[in-house]
Amino acid sequence: MTAPEPPVRLPDDVAVVNVGLTLFADAVRDQAVPVQQVDWRIPAGGDPAMVEALEQLYGERGEAIDRANAEVVRRLDQGVPQLVGCEPAEALLPDVSGRVLLHCGPALAWADACDPLRRSLRAAAVAEGWAPDVAGADRLLEAGAVALEPAYRHDVVLPMATAIGPTQPLFAVDNPHGGTRAFSPLNQGSGDTAWFGRDTPGAVERLVFLRDVAGPLLREVLEHSGPVDLFALAAQGLQMGDDVHLRTQASTNLLIRTLLPHLVALRGDDRVELARFLSGNHLFFLNLAMAAAKAVALWADQVEGSSVVTMMCRNGTTFGIRLAGSATVHLAPAPPVSDALYYPGHGPEDSAPDIGDSAVLELVGLGAAAAAGSPAVAGFLGGTMAAAAALTRQMQAVCVTQSTRFKLPTWHNAGTPLGVDVRSVVELGTTPRVTTGILDATSGAGQVGAGVATAPLGCFRAAVAALAQP
Amino acid sequence: MTAPEPPVRLPDDVAVVNVGLTLFADAVRDQAVPVQQVDWRIPAGGDPAMVEALEQLYGERGEAIDRANAEVVRRLDQGVPQLVGCEPAEALLPDVSGRVLLHCGPALAWADACDPLRRSLRAAAVAEGWAPDVAGADRLLEAGAVALEPAYRHDVVLPMATAIGPTQPLFAVDNPHGGTRAFSPLNQGSGDTAWFGRDTPGAVERLVFLRDVAGPLLREVLEHSGPVDLFALAAQGLQMGDDVHLRTQASTNLLIRTLLPHLVALRGDDRVELARFLSGNHLFFLNLAMAAAKAVALWADQVEGSSVVTMMCRNGTTFGIRLAGSATVHLAPAPPVSDALYYPGHGPEDSAPDIGDSAVLELVGLGAAAAAGSPAVAGFLGGTMAAAAALTRQMQAVCVTQSTRFKLPTWHNAGTPLGVDVRSVVELGTTPRVTTGILDATSGAGQVGAGVATAPLGCFRAAVAALAQP
Repeated sequence: MTAPEPPVRLPDDVAVVNVGLTLFADAVRDQAVPVQQVDWRIPAGGDPAMVEALEQLYGERGEAIDRANAEVVRRLDQGVPQLVGCEPAEALLPDVSGRVLLHCGPALAWADACDPLRRSLRAAAVAEGWAPDVAGADRLLEAGAVALEPAYRHDVVLPMATAIGPTQPLFAVDNPHGGTRAFSPLNQGSGDTAWFGRDTPGAVERLVFLRDVAGPLLREVLEHSGPVDLFALAAQGLQMGDDVHLRTQASTNLLIRTLLPHLVALRGDDRVELARFLSGNHLFFLNLAMAAAKAVALWADQVEGSSVVTMMCRNGTTFGIRLAGSATVHLAPAPPVSDALYYPGHGPEDSAPDIGDSAVLELVGLGAAAAAGSPAVAGFLGGTMAAAAALTRQMQAVCVTQSTRFKLPTWHNAGTPLGVDVRSVVELGTTPRVTTGILDATSGAGQVGAGVATAPLGCFRAAVAALAQP
Repeated sequence: MTAPEPPVRLPDDVAVVNVGLTLFADAVRDQAVPVQQVDWRIPAGGDPAMVEALEQLYGERGEAIDRANAEVVRRLDQGVPQLVGCEPAEALLPDVSGRVLLHCGPALAWADACDPLRRSLRAAAVAEGWAPDVAGADRLLEAGAVALEPAYRHDVVLPMATAIGPTQPLFAVDNPHGGTRAFSPLNQGSGDTAWFGRDTPGAVERLVFLRDVAGPLLREVLEHSGPVDLFALAAQGLQMGDDVHLRTQASTNLLIRTLLPHLVALRGDDRVELARFLSGNHLFFLNLAMAAAKAVALWADQVEGSSVVTMMCRNGTTFGIRLAGSATVHLAPAPPVSDALYYPGHGPEDSAPDIGDSAVLELVGLGAAAAAGSPAVAGFLGGTMAAAAALTRQMQAVCVTQSTRFKLPTWHNAGTPLGVDVRSVVELGTTPRVTTGILDATSGAGQVGAGVATAPLGCFRAAVAALAQP
């Protein structure tokens, strides 16, 4: 015999939990009944092929992928990238010689390059001495007399529209834990510069200055300073309001403070020119943070069977991602930079699409992942720290874990989101956000604003489909 | 004829507002009835003399005082102090010559000086060459053969237990708006240093280094750099987590970045020694912020009939305050530093009382007033930004207005509290808080921790009583 069921008793107060579309919740709320909205959406927008792929990647293969992902994020979290030197690209990378230019983002032909990248390539060709002026450089490039190579193939990361030739100096960043090494050029600074899509005499002159003055002097500085722990500086920078992508003021200053005795010890008269350049370039740390991120990403790349993104780059025409352990770059059209503030006289209509290799920062817990700690990023999102925190939460929704190294005092001292999982991206339809600058689309005016780009879903869907292949 | 009064209707729900003692509120809350506690206290703790004084200062004289206060806080808010030079004290202050030492805080005799200040005075006497060693210096000081002068009488501000002789270099900080000028010595750095209450050979050597190496080189740097807007750097530092008292890392780095071309341009071999010192001294900006605060406080001092505090200083024995327009320093015993973190092996029992002129920072919207923006201060208060924000709110309760210059992104971009009003302090019994270091009380071990001091009420009550005199 079983005891009789207790009589059903309705609670004294009725409240509603609504899952999914908000329309019903709004109707309930209008009648002054408490309602809790749960943001549930149909996985992968209900696309049958994606739902099937996800079922496999979360299902029978889920455990193996989770295991691979755990190792990938361990490497992203625990690599210790060190700035160890500064040499011309051709000295560090024997493959980069002759008439070749490295450019940001996925591979592309000259015919497909956007205007800012074309200008940057022209300026680089003139700086290399291959043409007397940008018109001559344009003819060479148009004729295919200069080879174009995506920088990522050489473990080089290039911010915005940067393009470099074999004589440009590169920073070498080692990750001794993994035996990996990545490279980035010296940041060119604000204003009249090629990485902002300008091909003026001033932009060419800056490239020549970096090659002839800044590079050799910084090589000397690093020989005396010894290795510099870049993520230790970035972690401090986060505590000081940098997201270490859109804003790198604090980490740049920390680097200057660290190198100060060696900068002051330089002897040539050029040293003051270098000091003036560093003093006026609050973006100097950006390229170093990128190379550091790339160095740990390359270590993570050695793990197979993961659903975590280890490369995310744009050339102003296409947006590409690659998963750890995979050689395939999945492409989608480069998106616009949506949440943006423009310089006076500029707006979305004259803005080039999202560009540069810097989105690697978002993959290691910096940039949008660290927005919650950055008043500067908040400034681009209406000014409130809550808006910046929303950006970090959005990254959190698609990340595997949180950084144990990058922590945000304004976010309950929590670690920044780490390890973008394509499964979560496609399931939720939520793609990574990227804090970034905006370049003029056609006129060579350079930077016209800054804001937050939203990665296009297409390349993540392609990555999920590829991963689900037997 | 009048309409009949409507019948009295009790509300359906009963809730309680409790004003004053929390005991009743607790009892109501225990019965699950909603209760709102209002923090009302008997003004001035019910002291009849104070209540009478306050009635006068808020009553018939209230309007005139409010007018004076408005001008005082306008000056504190809008002065633009500029670092303009670096010279030996005797060159800048002709009155400071012969065997005289300036010390922090209110005037005091050698017999009344605390141990850390005695050690600092001895080290300064040796550095001046008046005695071959600290034992000899002690005999001179004991015999009254060295005059002791409170630095404030010369518009000089000295952090912690700093004492300086006539040959020590001083920074000169001008406030051109008010024609006022204030001074501070070079910060001595962390570790084995006299301002931390040490009288070792190393501490003496640091004073000699500042005089013979750092001072002359920084003089040259400032001749080439031109005036440096110190509060512009401090305002940026606040956005980067400095409270600009307990923590000055970001503003120090901003200063280094600003001066970098001129530091690098120096020629003598000593320049690397200076660079090493600056690179390792995250407190370097502290003294400059203090001199800047003093420069605007001196301008505010020219306003008569105000109840706003323009000087707040401690010598480790007494705590003194002075109101704008007044010559009287009101004294109370120096308090302990209460909310503190100690270095391993140290605690309240071996800590000297609160010491130094740096509390002038709290009077211009920095230090505890800016705690809400500082993860470093939060670290001393249990680690949460909410605890740091509580400190700023406490300052807000006794301040006249908010800074239009110093704003906190983590505090809704609000300006920091500005202009401590003795009337509010005595009415509420809430004294200013001061973020500060802690020195060893007796053994000369130097800094043993850092935390937050609470100003003693006595000197504020004395100021209220004096202001209420006819």
